[in-house]
Amino acid sequence: MKTGFFGDIQKIKYEGPDSTNPLAYRFYNPDEIVAGKRLEDHLRFAVAYWHSFAWEGGDPFGGRTFDRPWYDGEMEKAKLKADVAFEMFSLLGAPYYCFHDADVRPEGKTFAENTKNLEEIVDYFAQKQEETGVKLLWGTANLFSNRRFMSGASTNPDPDVFAYSAATIKTCMDATQKLGGENYVLWGGREGYETLLNTDLSREFDQMARMLHMVVDYKHKIGFKGAILVEPKPQEPTKHQYDYDVATVYGFLKKYGLENEVKMNIEQGHAILAGHTFEHELALANAHGIFGSIDMNRNDYQSGWDTDQFPNNVPEMALAYYQVLLAGGFTTGGTNFDSKLRRQSIDPEDLLIGHIGGMDSCARGLKAAAKMLEDGALSKPLAERYAKWDSPDAQKMLRGEYKLEELAAKVERENINPEPKSGRQEFLENVVNRYV
Amino acid sequence: MKTGFFGDIQKIKYEGPDSTNPLAYRFYNPDEIVAGKRLEDHLRFAVAYWHSFAWEGGDPFGGRTFDRPWYDGEMEKAKLKADVAFEMFSLLGAPYYCFHDADVRPEGKTFAENTKNLEEIVDYFAQKQEETGVKLLWGTANLFSNRRFMSGASTNPDPDVFAYSAATIKTCMDATQKLGGENYVLWGGREGYETLLNTDLSREFDQMARMLHMVVDYKHKIGFKGAILVEPKPQEPTKHQYDYDVATVYGFLKKYGLENEVKMNIEQGHAILAGHTFEHELALANAHGIFGSIDMNRNDYQSGWDTDQFPNNVPEMALAYYQVLLAGGFTTGGTNFDSKLRRQSIDPEDLLIGHIGGMDSCARGLKAAAKMLEDGALSKPLAERYAKWDSPDAQKMLRGEYKLEELAAKVERENINPEPKSGRQEFLENVVNRYV
Amino acid sequence: MKTGFFGDIQKIKYEGPDSTNPLAYRFYNPDEIVAGKRLEDHLRFAVAYWHSFAWEGGDPFGGRTFDRPWYDGEMEKAKLKADVAFEMFSLLGAPYYCFHDADVRPEGKTFAENTKNLEEIVDYFAQKQEETGVKLLWGTANLFSNRRFMSGASTNPDPDVFAYSAATIKTCMDATQKLGGENYVLWGGREGYETLLNTDLSREFDQMARMLHMVVDYKHKIGFKGAILVEPKPQEPTKHQYDYDVATVYGFLKKYGLENEVKMNIEQGHAILAGHTFEHELALANAHGIFGSIDMNRNDYQSGWDTDQFPNNVPEMALAYYQVLLAGGFTTGGTNFDSKLRRQSIDPEDLLIGHIGGMDSCARGLKAAAKMLEDGALSKPLAERYAKWDSPDAQKMLRGEYKLEELAAKVERENINPEPKSGRQEFLENVVNRYV
Amino acid sequence: MKTGFFGDIQKIKYEGPDSTNPLAYRFYNPDEIVAGKRLEDHLRFAVAYWHSFAWEGGDPFGGRTFDRPWYDGEMEKAKLKADVAFEMFSLLGAPYYCFHDADVRPEGKTFAENTKNLEEIVDYFAQKQEETGVKLLWGTANLFSNRRFMSGASTNPDPDVFAYSAATIKTCMDATQKLGGENYVLWGGREGYETLLNTDLSREFDQMARMLHMVVDYKHKIGFKGAILVEPKPQEPTKHQYDYDVATVYGFLKKYGLENEVKMNIEQGHAILAGHTFEHELALANAHGIFGSIDMNRNDYQSGWDTDQFPNNVPEMALAYYQVLLAGGFTTGGTNFDSKLRRQSIDPEDLLIGHIGGMDSCARGLKAAAKMLEDGALSKPLAERYAKWDSPDAQKMLRGEYKLEELAAKVERENINPEPKSGRQEFLENVVNRYV
Repeated sequence: MKTGFFGDIQKIKYEGPDSTNPLAYRFYNPDEIVAGKRLEDHLRFAVAYWHSFAWEGGDPFGGRTFDRPWYDGEMEKAKLKADVAFEMFSLLGAPYYCFHDADVRPEGKTFAENTKNLEEIVDYFAQKQEETGVKLLWGTANLFSNRRFMSGASTNPDPDVFAYSAATIKTCMDATQKLGGENYVLWGGREGYETLLNTDLSREFDQMARMLHMVVDYKHKIGFKGAILVEPKPQEPTKHQYDYDVATVYGFLKKYGLENEVKMNIEQGHAILAGHTFEHELALANAHGIFGSIDMNRNDYQSGWDTDQFPNNVPEMALAYYQVLLAGGFTTGGTNFDSKLRRQSIDPEDLLIGHIGGMDSCARGLKAAAKMLEDGALSKPLAERYAKWDSPDAQKMLRGEYKLEELAAKVERENINPEPKSGRQEFLENVVNRYV
Repeated sequence: MKTGFFGDIQKIKYEGPDSTNPLAYRFYNPDEIVAGKRLEDHLRFAVAYWHSFAWEGGDPFGGRTFDRPWYDGEMEKAKLKADVAFEMFSLLGAPYYCFHDADVRPEGKTFAENTKNLEEIVDYFAQKQEETGVKLLWGTANLFSNRRFMSGASTNPDPDVFAYSAATIKTCMDATQKLGGENYVLWGGREGYETLLNTDLSREFDQMARMLHMVVDYKHKIGFKGAILVEPKPQEPTKHQYDYDVATVYGFLKKYGLENEVKMNIEQGHAILAGHTFEHELALANAHGIFGSIDMNRNDYQSGWDTDQFPNNVPEMALAYYQVLLAGGFTTGGTNFDSKLRRQSIDPEDLLIGHIGGMDSCARGLKAAAKMLEDGALSKPLAERYAKWDSPDAQKMLRGEYKLEELAAKVERENINPEPKSGRQEFLENVVNRYV
Repeated sequence: MKTGFFGDIQKIKYEGPDSTNPLAYRFYNPDEIVAGKRLEDHLRFAVAYWHSFAWEGGDPFGGRTFDRPWYDGEMEKAKLKADVAFEMFSLLGAPYYCFHDADVRPEGKTFAENTKNLEEIVDYFAQKQEETGVKLLWGTANLFSNRRFMSGASTNPDPDVFAYSAATIKTCMDATQKLGGENYVLWGGREGYETLLNTDLSREFDQMARMLHMVVDYKHKIGFKGAILVEPKPQEPTKHQYDYDVATVYGFLKKYGLENEVKMNIEQGHAILAGHTFEHELALANAHGIFGSIDMNRNDYQSGWDTDQFPNNVPEMALAYYQVLLAGGFTTGGTNFDSKLRRQSIDPEDLLIGHIGGMDSCARGLKAAAKMLEDGALSKPLAERYAKWDSPDAQKMLRGEYKLEELAAKVERENINPEPKSGRQEFLENVVNRYV
Repeated sequence: MKTGFFGDIQKIKYEGPDSTNPLAYRFYNPDEIVAGKRLEDHLRFAVAYWHSFAWEGGDPFGGRTFDRPWYDGEMEKAKLKADVAFEMFSLLGAPYYCFHDADVRPEGKTFAENTKNLEEIVDYFAQKQEETGVKLLWGTANLFSNRRFMSGASTNPDPDVFAYSAATIKTCMDATQKLGGENYVLWGGREGYETLLNTDLSREFDQMARMLHMVVDYKHKIGFKGAILVEPKPQEPTKHQYDYDVATVYGFLKKYGLENEVKMNIEQGHAILAGHTFEHELALANAHGIFGSIDMNRNDYQSGWDTDQFPNNVPEMALAYYQVLLAGGFTTGGTNFDSKLRRQSIDPEDLLIGHIGGMDSCARGLKAAAKMLEDGALSKPLAERYAKWDSPDAQKMLRGEYKLEELAAKVERENINPEPKSGRQEFLENVVNRYV
């Protein structure tokens, strides 16, 4: 079914690296086999409903720049929005999408009305999924835009907001389950503070943990097979958000005994806001056994806020996918474009072009990463670097069979005086540049 | 015993707020009773040996600017340095100091020589402590300056460096114990990485945890009564340090079962490098039960590196001490000035003036914090803000006696639709300004 | 005329430092004489219409939190908004206000309609000014919110937008003139770029300079006596704004021969976004002879965007007003609060409390600065530091009467080998702390 | 002449993209013709003497990690250092190098001794240049490392330091002239301040301008044909440096009438410290007619200090060289690697590998940029975007033949109401990705 929104643009095809057609893939060939798997099955691309269809182009200094026929509307408009959205997923050949409740349903006056609206649109989506073959990567609840959440959702000083949030999450988990969603995500955009002067950290941590426990319990109750994912972000909208980064969330999960139930949805832009590289956050999640899924957008390094741009720096993306592959690749997770057009990119075509560029860059990055891994280009030098730890004595030390005073005696006795070895960073960087 | 380094400057006295004498305290009256305790016993000031006596004024673009008679020397110079240092502690009336091994002893060619040098200087220090009454707040090992540590101490790819580091820590713990030190600190300046390309995070975490376990075991073996403190810092010298911030270290401690054995030494400058306020890090450590001690210096907000300046912004310091008081005040910890003079401040007098300014500002900050706490100026509005959580039903919810689906039913049934309440941030900020 | 919006709150009075009344001034006594001038005449406070009356509490992740009776309306609502605004100016005793056209008039469908609406509201304002004695510090045109300006106003690739912008400025200058405004401000929120890929810098600079020349010409034509002020900001909303900071704007003015016609409106938050302290920007404007006026709000040091909070850090504010006094104080300029409530501060009372805290902090800062200046607390050490430059030979060198080769000969001949002198930074910081 | 330092490594050769030899070029083929010019003549690579041969691997928390046979020495060691340096230039086939006086000569006790040492080493260099064919891209004076410069060189409060600095610059300009250097650079590492409390900006600007005038006069006197280049950097080592960025230096040059005599040496790392992209700084210098030369290293985006790493991100480098080509390419300038090895990269081989990677990445970047330019890939859409400005009426407006009030009348009369057009950023980003 053509809505006409995209004019006569046809399904985007793979045309190979030499194509100059802006509406073709140059690197993303979904059926290409990379490291034993179809590229589509590696990358598991998803389109974010909110940025592409609900966001209107506003920023803190200006309002709507886009001009979409589904704005300002009720259920009929919401369905038109869905028609265009699924049309775009199909045009792109994107196998997945993601949504918040507030992106897809009209805002009701009461919780009951919101629920009813959500159920109606979920039925509509189910039908669209059936028609197009597009699947749901994850669903989530928007617990940050409405003014009732201004002081937090689960961490609100008002327990009624906690209850309201819990209720909303329940409806969104139901919707996700119904639509066959493969994960359920929680991003705590208001779970944080503007000032410590009015905030009790301990109390709010307990509230947040209680909510997460209820979510995990409900997952099991309804037999949801997907993963529960928390998405870290250090700040924005609030001054400080509790799910600051992967390390912080890990500590929180450990404190409340949730580390085996919850995984991470990691975003490049959030990583750099927290002072990390994207690959750091991915490697850390893998080291802690909580890697889940990614939001593959980029932030501008010179802007201090979340710019959510389509990714395009292939060398950086190769390093990110290298970590994804080291983690064994995606299981329930995938590559979600939590990316919005620049607000000056007001043409329907821009929506397609942004995604095409992002998907092509991901494909280049992943292929480079897979080749590096296959060649052992980085893993061999890494193994060599730590090789001395393989000795029985070193292993004994690592297992704790030496005491501090025994090591002191040994160092003195053997006059151990280690000479440093080159870290070879420039060599390794050049190696990476052979692949990108 | 006068070394002559400070000319004829006499012990710094408290002269009250109206004094214009640059060599007098205007707010730090050690015997003043604040919230039931002498100011000296609240603040527990310590001078950092390294910045004041070992650092030579260099920066990445220039060398030594100071010109001290103890530079470039062997044991006799190290003792002269100690003479001046203890003279300064006494002039200031600072009850404590802190040191790394490398600050105080000549560098030897071997581990054995280092140990011998350290033991000799520790004997000398013991005698100076006896003479002056000055005490040791904490000792620590410098496992970052010598080139052998360039790729890490406990996290080095070479197990010999791990062993060497363990041995060095053992000697420093012995020194700290011998000098009656009240804490032992670990700052992992090289426990991190320059590039993930040559780094195995999981392996290095395990190494770091092993070292920390050995330290804790040795503490118990020798009957050291003080606290083991880890000092977080996000980066510098390395690109990424594993003890990034309080939240990260907490997760690490939990992962390796160390959270009841290790506490935090928190520094303002490191907090802001990690994107936090100082008071955030303090509040978080308190919430996690791992608050230990503070490094009370400040970083320049416009400089992206650790500037380690003497603190002087009283409103900010009041908020920090407010968190210290909320945590119950210091037990083994204290207020260490991990502060260095600006490299242009080359006169001996500048050393005193820097500390006097810092101590006075701390005294003002603490007194303001104590008064706020006594008045309930912040705690009463805080309690009101969360008051609805005291209801039996809210408590039930918090204890987990509601399931997600039960809350959804309740919200729908009762048509819960919470109205937001003012967060009153400006009001609270104005309240604070009544105290500073 | 009471609108009822502020309930029964009466005019805010000065009650002295010991008052605990949140609706009283503790330091701002308008009639107090400081350095020979009334405090009110020193500080020249202005309230920003936009943040207090037009902003609805939204941020990039959430919508309106405030709930004001004048929202969403046409001319009658605009007049109600004006009634409340002037009531608030009067309650506060703020002598001035500032506005953009878009803050005060309903948005029309055409330029002509906008002009008509603006004229109607200007008449209404004129009458309110008459009634209340409140004056206009400056007016300005909002050339950034409407989507027509998304790619720039004067720097737009479409000359029609240039023309539209010029026309709008003309109407705003007329309005400012009619209301007796003492300055006219230009902030180029969209004069910059999102990507260099679609931007021709040279061309856009020429366009921007042309607009500024037209503004200056029109000022002279209509006999406007106030200053034309440009407000620097480095970024946000755009990735890069042309009026980056004071130094950048100065270079631009020099390039286009405008340095004697245009001055600076400097904001603390914009200064720190550009990597400077506020006092740096003020000192630089003074050094270049282009100091005009200030926006006295603050940004959060940990947030990478413009937080526009009410100022409250008195030590920092004292340093800012010290620079204002060094520049001779305000002439046409003043202290505008370009400050918005935190979006959780939703009560009418919060609006007053935010301003009261800001005004009190400014008063404390200014009084401290005036006293430092009177005492020569900083200026005497400064003069001593540079005293060697007063010698005839040094003056000769500075005037250019030595050539490079002559100085080389002189240095060699006289074996000049200068010894550094202490910069005494900690001493000077302690001096400042005697005043705040 | 082989020093043996690099073992039996032979001259680095171009082996093409498929080579896996770490000691070969894959993209840098000096004789390849790109846009009508040999690649070597486009790129004009230079090696920085200081980082590769004088820097010892220290950082603020640790000392020397490298272990070079020429350290700690007098003239014979300085000559050994030169032997190795020129050997490396030859091995790499780098046509140029750059140096500070302090990098190459032993430090003397007096100005006269420094001069004598410099002259001796310059004679030695002249001979090495003759032997190897390597040329000098630029010379410069180190006026920041010695403690005499701690409070500034030309901006010092002590006029003797001004004189000493002038004398030193004179000797360095002589050395540069004698060695056929093609530019002379000034980087004001201490021309700035640590605190405004002890600083008089106006006075220091006048001093700095006086020095620059003397430099320009001396250039003309000795008939130096090269360019005088200023290198902007916002901070580090000082809190604030006067040559903050290109825009700031431009304003300074305009103020003191130097804009036709001085050009810019622009560094990527300094650009991002100042909050800009590298390509922004290049484009701005071109727009102001002051583009000169580049330092092609990179900073880590997560580190707040100057990391001076070898560049390796080809997409970013392509955008930089695109701006270089838009400026007409280098005339006297070139591509200097102001890059240092990571301090763990302690092997001689690492020095070569770092440069090889950098040179290869530059070659890839330049070739991509040249192709984009040749294809008009970016310039055609750019011309289209601004096409409406070509109309006679728009040109009239730009020339100033409309007054503000005339434009207002025109907008009202013609009911001008411009519709925005897409900025097409994602399209353009995808276009760039076709080339890199």
